[in-house]
Amino acid sequence: MRLSIVSTGEEVLRGQIADENALFLSRALVDLGLEVGRRFTCGDGLDDLTRTIAGALRDADALIGSGGLGPTADDRTLDALAEVLQAPLEVCPEALERLRRAFSEMGLPFTDNQARQARRPVGAELLDNAVGTAPGIALEREGKLIFWLPGPPFELRRMFSDQVVPRLVRWREQQGGGERQAQRTLRVFGRGEGWIGEQLAPLEATIPGLSLGFRADLPEIEVKLYARGANPAELSARLERAEHEVRHLLGDVVFSSGQTLPETLLDLLYERRLTLAAAESCTGGLIAKLLTDIPGASVSFLLSAVTYANTAKEAVLGVLPETIREHGAVSETCARAMAEGVRRVSGADLAVSATGIAGPDGGTPEKPVGLVHFALAHQSGTTASRRVFRQRTREAVRALAAAHAMDMVRRHLLGLPPLGPPAPPKHEAR
Amino acid sequence: MRLSIVSTGEEVLRGQIADENALFLSRALVDLGLEVGRRFTCGDGLDDLTRTIAGALRDADALIGSGGLGPTADDRTLDALAEVLQAPLEVCPEALERLRRAFSEMGLPFTDNQARQARRPVGAELLDNAVGTAPGIALEREGKLIFWLPGPPFELRRMFSDQVVPRLVRWREQQGGGERQAQRTLRVFGRGEGWIGEQLAPLEATIPGLSLGFRADLPEIEVKLYARGANPAELSARLERAEHEVRHLLGDVVFSSGQTLPETLLDLLYERRLTLAAAESCTGGLIAKLLTDIPGASVSFLLSAVTYANTAKEAVLGVLPETIREHGAVSETCARAMAEGVRRVSGADLAVSATGIAGPDGGTPEKPVGLVHFALAHQSGTTASRRVFRQRTREAVRALAAAHAMDMVRRHLLGLPPLGPPAPPKHEAR
Repeated sequence: MRLSIVSTGEEVLRGQIADENALFLSRALVDLGLEVGRRFTCGDGLDDLTRTIAGALRDADALIGSGGLGPTADDRTLDALAEVLQAPLEVCPEALERLRRAFSEMGLPFTDNQARQARRPVGAELLDNAVGTAPGIALEREGKLIFWLPGPPFELRRMFSDQVVPRLVRWREQQGGGERQAQRTLRVFGRGEGWIGEQLAPLEATIPGLSLGFRADLPEIEVKLYARGANPAELSARLERAEHEVRHLLGDVVFSSGQTLPETLLDLLYERRLTLAAAESCTGGLIAKLLTDIPGASVSFLLSAVTYANTAKEAVLGVLPETIREHGAVSETCARAMAEGVRRVSGADLAVSATGIAGPDGGTPEKPVGLVHFALAHQSGTTASRRVFRQRTREAVRALAAAHAMDMVRRHLLGLPPLGPPAPPKHEAR
Repeated sequence: MRLSIVSTGEEVLRGQIADENALFLSRALVDLGLEVGRRFTCGDGLDDLTRTIAGALRDADALIGSGGLGPTADDRTLDALAEVLQAPLEVCPEALERLRRAFSEMGLPFTDNQARQARRPVGAELLDNAVGTAPGIALEREGKLIFWLPGPPFELRRMFSDQVVPRLVRWREQQGGGERQAQRTLRVFGRGEGWIGEQLAPLEATIPGLSLGFRADLPEIEVKLYARGANPAELSARLERAEHEVRHLLGDVVFSSGQTLPETLLDLLYERRLTLAAAESCTGGLIAKLLTDIPGASVSFLLSAVTYANTAKEAVLGVLPETIREHGAVSETCARAMAEGVRRVSGADLAVSATGIAGPDGGTPEKPVGLVHFALAHQSGTTASRRVFRQRTREAVRALAAAHAMDMVRRHLLGLPPLGPPAPPKHEAR
């Protein structure tokens, strides 16, 4: 069961926008256990569209395309589909009525060209668009499924989840002799894909019907569990067992089933009615940015002091000038003083700090690029840790440092020991 | 002169990584004035590779592909090229020697499979890889150019700029009867693409050999000037005149030729030996993050106080409790107190603040989602401004607010008036 993905539009082709839809669809199809055969991108010209659709369809058992369903003259997807399928276009009266109603509700005039969106190749089904105007297309032709969705990612995602996924699942069950599939995601921080893969190597052989996938969403890693089975009870039992085994093999570096590290941390803080502050040097506001990306963060996250200059560390956090003179701003002593300082100033229950050398310059043999000192100040004292992130870019060092700081707080809240070096694979030790 | 782009690799196809190479190549080719015909993505299988390369080559006058040139068994691009071109593979002795030397310099053993990377289809040229091991491929076949580059984006970009661009430029000049092309980029903040497009509408007709392109790099907009001409002097005169006209038509919302807004601001501060601090509420550290993304920011950027909680605004910035009680945290009065507070605490020459409602919830009729108050405190006083960003997402509101805050500082440093509503198009007023 191999699928083709087709993206259309001059803006994608010319690199004015990234092809978000192809990335989303690839991931979503893999998550459904389907094989992505090839992806194609073409512009708005009728000839390119027709050749691309015909080629993509020859190549696979099903096709999902997007874009070019709108009301304007450069929206030619329906014409191309009609040509490839040798099925003339007809206006769907119900879709036309829905469109008219939608425009009247928005108080907008219904111009003639809008009616173009109610067309469909004879034999096709129109998929309702809950968050836009252009409907999608679904049809079957010689045993192959064809879906075409609107180009705006927001509309595509909604229509895919609500209307395409159920049809694909049904189709896969028919093709696979009734076999079902389900998946679950666990998220890991503090170990690389290589180590994770080794730890989990024996698992697929141990649990029948299970396969594993890994995806780096740096600095976090996603471990995907895919289970196949005859019925929902079997699937659920397999996933339960697999999650249990993965957690056993990987240990406490698994921090959630699905949520990101900032989300996990904010939930933990909220559950315990605790507040957090941060003192950031090399991370430069990234810890604050990641936490406040999440609506409602203000309940638990009070303050980040982004003290990039040493004078700011002294003035805002009360770090002593002699601390910086004797140990340097990148030192355990300074990290401790920063965390304690921001905890005092903010009145937060917990405070975390990061001070290091993000690079690309500024390293020395004793304090190389990538060295970061962290501290966590809490009611009963202050703990510190030190890491050297050997990544090549400033961006990667900063992302790892911000995640490590958040993970330090998570581990403290859960009563876990500080993250140490990885243990040898457990299955070898058995 | 139409080009095909081919990306290969299971990780791209399965959505484990975004297709950065296709995006980069699309943009780079458009910048060279070449037409991107279609893009193709396939996995590592020999059959898929062969069909994709053959199809992509039929489709265009030139092809740029990437990936699958490495030493392992799943790197099958060379075999596929050999099959499509009907040209057997041969080992290039110079490339083999370079590879051996590179491995010996790195102190690594040279295994047999590494020699696979020194192969080329008979008649092809190997392109040296300055930052990796696998060489690239360049060849001409029946008047069509074919390039194949290593998959790692870092290696691809370097080899494309150093070795593919000069060959493409020569080829374009041959095809175009000796006509040359050059381009320049101007960056804009504070106006939408629609307004910019309208303002610049008459320009292509006024300046012969000029065409324009727009790219949203939100919240900034890039205006690209493409000039064609017979010789370098003509090109340069055309671009000069075009830049002059664009700056005249758009006014002071053009902030740079190439640099981003954070880069522009840091350069301005550095030139004038001035320091900056920020007090951030709704932007949650994003201003600090964007500035400290740039190495060396610490010279000019001293501190950001990310005071998400009202208590933090009081404790760190000295905002009076009655200010928040009477006016609310999202108010001009509070924004002014925040900017003045962080300027006092940090000792910076300039201080900017942002406090608003990023959404998605928390809005009221008087203070809707998207409302942000800004203030800028400097030696001779404090100025304030207010914006309502009507974008749909929290992310967009935060990005616009951070950029507006930085632009406020830029305008102040250049003695420009605050950004007002857009003027009617100048060409209509003539």
